[in-house]
Amino acid sequence: MAKNLTSRATDYSKWYNELVIQADLAENSGVRGCMVIKPYGFAIWERMQAELDRMFKETGHQNAYFPLFIPKSYFSKEASHVDGFAKECAVVTHYRLKNDEDGGGIVVDPDARLEEELIVRPTSETIIWDTYRKWIQSYRDLPILVNQWANVVRWEMRTRLFLRTAEFLWQEGHTAHATEAEAIAEAEQMINVYADFVENFMAVPVIKGLKTESERFAGALETYCIEALMQDGKALQAGTSHFLGQNFAKAFDVKFADRDGKLDHVWATSWGVSTRLMGALIMTHSDDNGLVLPPNLAPDQVVIVPIYRNDEQFDAVSEVANKIQSELRAKGLRVKFDKRDTHKPGWKFNEYELKGVPVRIAIGPKDVENGTVEIARRDTLSKEIVQVTDSADHISGLMEEIQTNLYQKAVDARTELTTEVETYDEFKEVLEKKGGFILAHWDGTAETEEQVKNETKATIRCIPMEGDTSPGNCMVTGRPSARKVLFAKAY
Amino acid sequence: MAKNLTSRATDYSKWYNELVIQADLAENSGVRGCMVIKPYGFAIWERMQAELDRMFKETGHQNAYFPLFIPKSYFSKEASHVDGFAKECAVVTHYRLKNDEDGGGIVVDPDARLEEELIVRPTSETIIWDTYRKWIQSYRDLPILVNQWANVVRWEMRTRLFLRTAEFLWQEGHTAHATEAEAIAEAEQMINVYADFVENFMAVPVIKGLKTESERFAGALETYCIEALMQDGKALQAGTSHFLGQNFAKAFDVKFADRDGKLDHVWATSWGVSTRLMGALIMTHSDDNGLVLPPNLAPDQVVIVPIYRNDEQFDAVSEVANKIQSELRAKGLRVKFDKRDTHKPGWKFNEYELKGVPVRIAIGPKDVENGTVEIARRDTLSKEIVQVTDSADHISGLMEEIQTNLYQKAVDARTELTTEVETYDEFKEVLEKKGGFILAHWDGTAETEEQVKNETKATIRCIPMEGDTSPGNCMVTGRPSARKVLFAKAY
Repeated sequence: MAKNLTSRATDYSKWYNELVIQADLAENSGVRGCMVIKPYGFAIWERMQAELDRMFKETGHQNAYFPLFIPKSYFSKEASHVDGFAKECAVVTHYRLKNDEDGGGIVVDPDARLEEELIVRPTSETIIWDTYRKWIQSYRDLPILVNQWANVVRWEMRTRLFLRTAEFLWQEGHTAHATEAEAIAEAEQMINVYADFVENFMAVPVIKGLKTESERFAGALETYCIEALMQDGKALQAGTSHFLGQNFAKAFDVKFADRDGKLDHVWATSWGVSTRLMGALIMTHSDDNGLVLPPNLAPDQVVIVPIYRNDEQFDAVSEVANKIQSELRAKGLRVKFDKRDTHKPGWKFNEYELKGVPVRIAIGPKDVENGTVEIARRDTLSKEIVQVTDSADHISGLMEEIQTNLYQKAVDARTELTTEVETYDEFKEVLEKKGGFILAHWDGTAETEEQVKNETKATIRCIPMEGDTSPGNCMVTGRPSARKVLFAKAY
Repeated sequence: MAKNLTSRATDYSKWYNELVIQADLAENSGVRGCMVIKPYGFAIWERMQAELDRMFKETGHQNAYFPLFIPKSYFSKEASHVDGFAKECAVVTHYRLKNDEDGGGIVVDPDARLEEELIVRPTSETIIWDTYRKWIQSYRDLPILVNQWANVVRWEMRTRLFLRTAEFLWQEGHTAHATEAEAIAEAEQMINVYADFVENFMAVPVIKGLKTESERFAGALETYCIEALMQDGKALQAGTSHFLGQNFAKAFDVKFADRDGKLDHVWATSWGVSTRLMGALIMTHSDDNGLVLPPNLAPDQVVIVPIYRNDEQFDAVSEVANKIQSELRAKGLRVKFDKRDTHKPGWKFNEYELKGVPVRIAIGPKDVENGTVEIARRDTLSKEIVQVTDSADHISGLMEEIQTNLYQKAVDARTELTTEVETYDEFKEVLEKKGGFILAHWDGTAETEEQVKNETKATIRCIPMEGDTSPGNCMVTGRPSARKVLFAKAY
């Protein structure tokens, strides 16, 4: 067990907070609710960004950039949208500071008040649709398939590193279409892109589904989501894709002329994932020894630690290390040879375990003599001795093996923590004793959903798009239910 | 000449504004001073980012992310820093909106006033050095070589797309070192990295130099800069790198223990380039027909336009086009085959000329018959007929030729617009009749610098690090001058 790291069994929440800090991923800043993403954490996020960006471009999207600030009047144009975000937004009211004439130091200059307050974007639908009005005249201008990588601000009162912060980084796709069907197809395509990324790169299994009306994005007609399950049995929403209908086009008066010259409002989607994914990545795979990273996203996939007592030994060990490093790099692997003499091998072993590097190679004088190296896997904590000549092929194979193993372990953990129930008593018992995903019948009303939430703190995570679709009776009211839906307590 | 584009000779400033809009690079938004960077403009910026990011990483830097907001008290800690930025900053004072009970719509909730105002970062030295205090204890923690890609806000009153906007995108490097010499070496290294990027990717020649004290960054002991010259004879500062001494370490109490355990304040640098570079790129190469892009940064390096009257011709032309596209892509070139049937060839020719695509290939039925294609260069507006079999090699060679030609043309234009003068009368005459860079002797005082600025609007762009270093006498006061310095009117 890592020194000073609380175990998951002792206090899962404390374990998470300590791990994020100790593995150098992020830390709190002097600004309430805002985090600093440290270089190691940011390197993981950069890999996520690169893969997602590639996937967005492969599906025909282009990046653009829209203003950070949203005039208050724009914000108010879509009624349910402003309801959803007005209660937690940062408001810019002035544009200048000055020296206080009464010796109070630097103060806000009361003469520099803005005519209209600006909201720091919590999401960009309003400013973007105000812009799209200028871009769209006819069907020839459609579809618009645009994505933005940006920071957004939501003034959350209770924050946790990566999971819920006042400022966070994300991408937000905003598309415009000529038909309802095309917009729905886009929203579905993007939830599939997210699921593909989260499962194949993050090695986190997800359930695709639709949000209930009360859990939908403010302004959406339909919200598609992917839901993951953490080791402590709590769910985490990993990404959402919204079919916005013509709501924003109507609020911002965006019309297009179709092939027959007939004017109609444009159909819209928006979709996003954020640095919250870092929380999902950490909580799905990590253990009491620290972070565990899937090879597809690890900044360093392999680290080589030399063991030696003198210069001669160091030279002999380095020769082998350099050779293996070159071979692995030639195979496209990200490899670090840590030859720092300021830290002992034992310290390095701990450090890379804590930081979740998938494979560690140790090479000492004995190994050089025997033509072998010691290879340790982070996911299984197992070690083996391998011939130097076989090591590159072996490690290259390990990358896939580890990626698959992490995914399979997460699937198994989720299966173990997923329960189908028939009665509300059973539901409450499972929720209390075991937690996890609970599939249960629901009568489709907001009242019942609210009752369950108030009584148990569990929410409907989604109406799954796959799995058992047999009808039945609501566990609470006994009224008819079209299919079981997915409940859980959630982050 | 492009339809509707004002010529440079008629009105350079108008030409620039129209070009930015017509080439789909950027546009003004509904938020005062904030621009929308459109997909085509953003694709160029993304290429710049990718190259710079690679260069930063090759010189040992890592990316990280720090908060958007800076508490007012942090901002005030470094005296000259706050003086430099307080007059033009966006201030967040509240964290909630609400429905006005008197029917005034959505208003700022007076009960949600922040205890301490937050400044939207105009630059991040203060928040970063507050963080570095926690990261640095001993020499083992140094150097810290961190970069951040971010948006920043400076409440400029007069804005122009890319050149001066209230919000802009940039990168800011912030490094911490154990010694003064190491920090100075870092600041010099980064101005060289910038010069390398701007000259070799943007094809814009620059003069490296030092800013005078009055033109230095607020809080710096020394500011290194690169200065470019636009076609209208005005200078544009393309990048800066600052040696900050121990100013921020002292303001934020950041000390480290050296190898002997002695405590000292840490030495710092910061350096940045921004979306302003887009302005330099546009103004250096473009002409009255529109944008001209260097191949190293063009989102599309080659575009293929088919010419046909019927399906049969289209098929024959497409066969050749697809073959050339594959060959060029195999050579790593970015190629677009524009087979849209919604637009005529002539429209496409204009469009790609306006958008600055370096090479255009046109293929018609006659070409298919003859086994040839027509190749047009954007930089020289020249056309030639080339055998299909030679076309890929030829175009691949053209990429280098065009890149070199654009750089050489810019060097020649700068040489033409650079004048050495001995007297202040000569200086004023050259400035009025010709503009451009003017090398002249200066006595090294802020008073003389200010006088020249007030009387002529020309500023000292830099004290060049290279070139003629003969001493002389100040053109204004006749007092001794160590070397000629570089004057110009500037953007």
